[in-house]
Order: sequence, then C-alpha cells, then structure tokens
Amino acid sequence: MHRTKVKIVEEALDANNTIARANRDDFDRAGVRVVNFMSSPGAGKTSLLEGVLGDLDGVRVGVLEGDVQGSMDAERLAGLHLPVTQLNTDPGFGGECHLDANMVRSALPGIALGELDLLVIENVGNLVCPAEFALGEDVRVMAASVTEGEDKPLKYPLMFRTCDLVLVNKIDLLAHLDFDLDRFLYNLDQVNPHAPRLLVSARTGEGMERWREWLTALVRRARAKTPA
Amino acid sequence: MHRTKVKIVEEALDANNTIARANRDDFDRAGVRVVNFMSSPGAGKTSLLEGVLGDLDGVRVGVLEGDVQGSMDAERLAGLHLPVTQLNTDPGFGGECHLDANMVRSALPGIALGELDLLVIENVGNLVCPAEFALGEDVRVMAASVTEGEDKPLKYPLMFRTCDLVLVNKIDLLAHLDFDLDRFLYNLDQVNPHAPRLLVSARTGEGMERWREWLTALVRRARAKTPA
Repeated sequence: MHRTKVKIVEEALDANNTIARANRDDFDRAGVRVVNFMSSPGAGKTSLLEGVLGDLDGVRVGVLEGDVQGSMDAERLAGLHLPVTQLNTDPGFGGECHLDANMVRSALPGIALGELDLLVIENVGNLVCPAEFALGEDVRVMAASVTEGEDKPLKYPLMFRTCDLVLVNKIDLLAHLDFDLDRFLYNLDQVNPHAPRLLVSARTGEGMERWREWLTALVRRARAKTPA
Repeated sequence: MHRTKVKIVEEALDANNTIARANRDDFDRAGVRVVNFMSSPGAGKTSLLEGVLGDLDGVRVGVLEGDVQGSMDAERLAGLHLPVTQLNTDPGFGGECHLDANMVRSALPGIALGELDLLVIENVGNLVCPAEFALGEDVRVMAASVTEGEDKPLKYPLMFRTCDLVLVNKIDLLAHLDFDLDRFLYNLDQVNPHAPRLLVSARTGEGMERWREWLTALVRRARAKTPA
C-alpha cells in the first residue's frame, strides 16, 4: 500500500518537473528571474514584499499571488502599482495547500513576461508541500518568523534545505520572546549551512535594505550572464 | 483534468471517512474522548498542551504526536509523564503535510486506549490539509497565534469553520504587535460564529485555566452521557 502510494507520488512529481521545465524555458526566453517565496502562514511574506517591491532600483517586478481562497494579499500589493496576478488553489484545483507547476502554467497567459525583469511567486502559506513542487523558479526564498520557535528547520527540513535565502523576520519582537536566535541559526546550519540568512523586520524596516539589494543583485547577475 | 482530480480527491476522502469511523468506534468502545488539535507551524500547540495536560483533575490523558519528521514535541511532552506516541508522516507516508485516518489507525495498536479518558492528537503544523481529513475525533481544537495576522480565518476558512474551539494564543505579545484583535474575532465570526474562543498565553499562563477546564468538561460531559 505504501509502495503504491510512493510510486504515485513519484509519478506526480515527475509530471510536475516536466511542466516546471517548460515554465522555466518560458521565463528564460523572456529574460525574467523568478523567485518562489515560501513560508508558514502569517510569517510575513506579503509585508516583506510590500516593504521592498515598490522601490527596486529600475527592476520591473510582477507578483503571482498564490492563496487557497481570496485575494487579500493581491489587493495589498496592488497598492504598489505593480502587475499582480491572483492564483487561487481552491476553485479549480480542489483547495491545494501549495502551488504546483501546472497551476503556475495556467496563470502565465495573464502575465506579460516580456515587460518584467523579476517575477515573485508568493506561494501558499505552508512549511511542507510547497517545497516539494518546483514551479520553474530560479531561486527559492523563505521567510521564517522568530515567533515560530527555534525548532522549525529540524521539523520541516525540506523547505529549509532547498532554499537559497532565509529571511528571519519579525526580529523587532526578539526582546519579547523566549526565542534563542543562536539556536535557530544552529538548527538552520544543520539542514542548510550554505543558505545566506538576513535578519529583518518588515514592521520596523530593519534589515530590509539588504533584502532589497539581494533581489536587485539577482536580476543584475542574470543580466550580466545574458549574451548581448 | 480538474474534474478527474476532484473525483480522485472525493474518493480518497470517502475512504478516509470510512477509516475515521472505524477509529471513532474504537475510541467510543474504550470510552476515550478524542481531540484533533491543529494550527499553523509555531502557533504553540505543544506549549498549550504542556501548560495543561500535567494537571487535568483526574482525567487520564495521552497524546498522539504527528510530525513530518523527528520527535522533538513528543520528547517535550514526555516530561509530563504521559503516554506519548510519535507518528511521523515522513518515512512511511511520503512526507504528508497532515495526518489522515489511516495513519492514526496504524498507531492505535501502540496506544492503551483502555487506560485513557482523553486522547489529544497533535496534528502536523499546517492550516490547510489537516482540516480536510477526519481522524475519528470527537472535537477539533485549533490554535491561532496573534503573530499570524487578523486575516487567517478568511484565508484558511475550512479549518476555522470546522473547529469547536479556537485558542487565540500568544496574547502576551499583543502590546508589541499591530494585530487588531477585534478585527480577528470579526473575521472568525464570518466563517464560524459559533466556535467558542479563549484568549490565552502559554508563555505567561494567562487564560490557561479556562483551556484546562474546557478539556476536563469535555470528558465529564462524555461520562454523564455514558449509560451505567
């Protein structure tokens, strides 16, 4: 029973990877760098985007907003006058707890890739399944809130292991928590010693300049690599 | 394609419900009340259990601890000298983001139901899928941390809609957040006006006495209903 289930899961992931590669080809052809942005619910993804996307130093950015239901985050981001596309996993996809490559593919006709340098895909708030599904992204960024405890890298290792940047958010609350930052970073090192980590607060703005620079550098590196 | 997927999901949920009923029958025969305890990662489920389960006024309680990987929470709860059973969704079940009835069923041989009045099943930290899978529980309790924002009942309505109690946790942090408690409770009312809600802090102990009373009352009501 378990063996059959594992086989079905593997086939589903193979199919997902095929579609993810097609997405990636489309992104590459259009010269768009793509970030898959993940976290648990309420870790502050939308606030972290609100804090930087409005002023990205000439980078043309769009957002693909993934939610089970509703468009509250998309409406918040629309205030930045960026192209925001809403993708709900509920009506068409059965209330999935993650985005997959096919969902992203279904949204691409509505996104003017040729007018973007950077596309941020805000995934569904969930520390488990989003990490299992490639969307065609160049990099994975995750937000981890200090309110969630030090143990999360060990309890949800796949997402922490596969990400290229960890935003340690809500550091303005550190004085009011029993959170041991050193222990968290130690746990993160156990699963992903190579991932850079930025200590930030979307609320106070602390550290947000470095997050903005990380995103602009991502686009600049890609431009430097593109043949004239 | 979507229609086929919805059909497969419906069949899986039907199969889950059949096994959940078998679990429920076993629990009822043993006279054990069962709580399915859910939340997003880091909302404080384990701390909320640590705060009350050691002193439940004569109620014999056990915990079934669901995690993708590891046994950190089970080890924390073992300090209360309660029977704790670890259920990992990773090795046998492919890293599932939720418990289902079959996983719980597979754990039952290791749980001495006859020696319990109350079994708390701590689900995987996730606001989406755990709500879709009945385990055979009598009631559903969820923890919502005030650090997660006011919008969560609207963005993850199924879990909020189907729960019998909402523990609004980490209220010791309210003074340090922009969280609007009235707005959160208003949003909760939009999806589940009937669910009682308790404002608690596992850290300071505020409100925890009422959470303890709620659990003991759950067992007492069941005893009163049981024919002699």
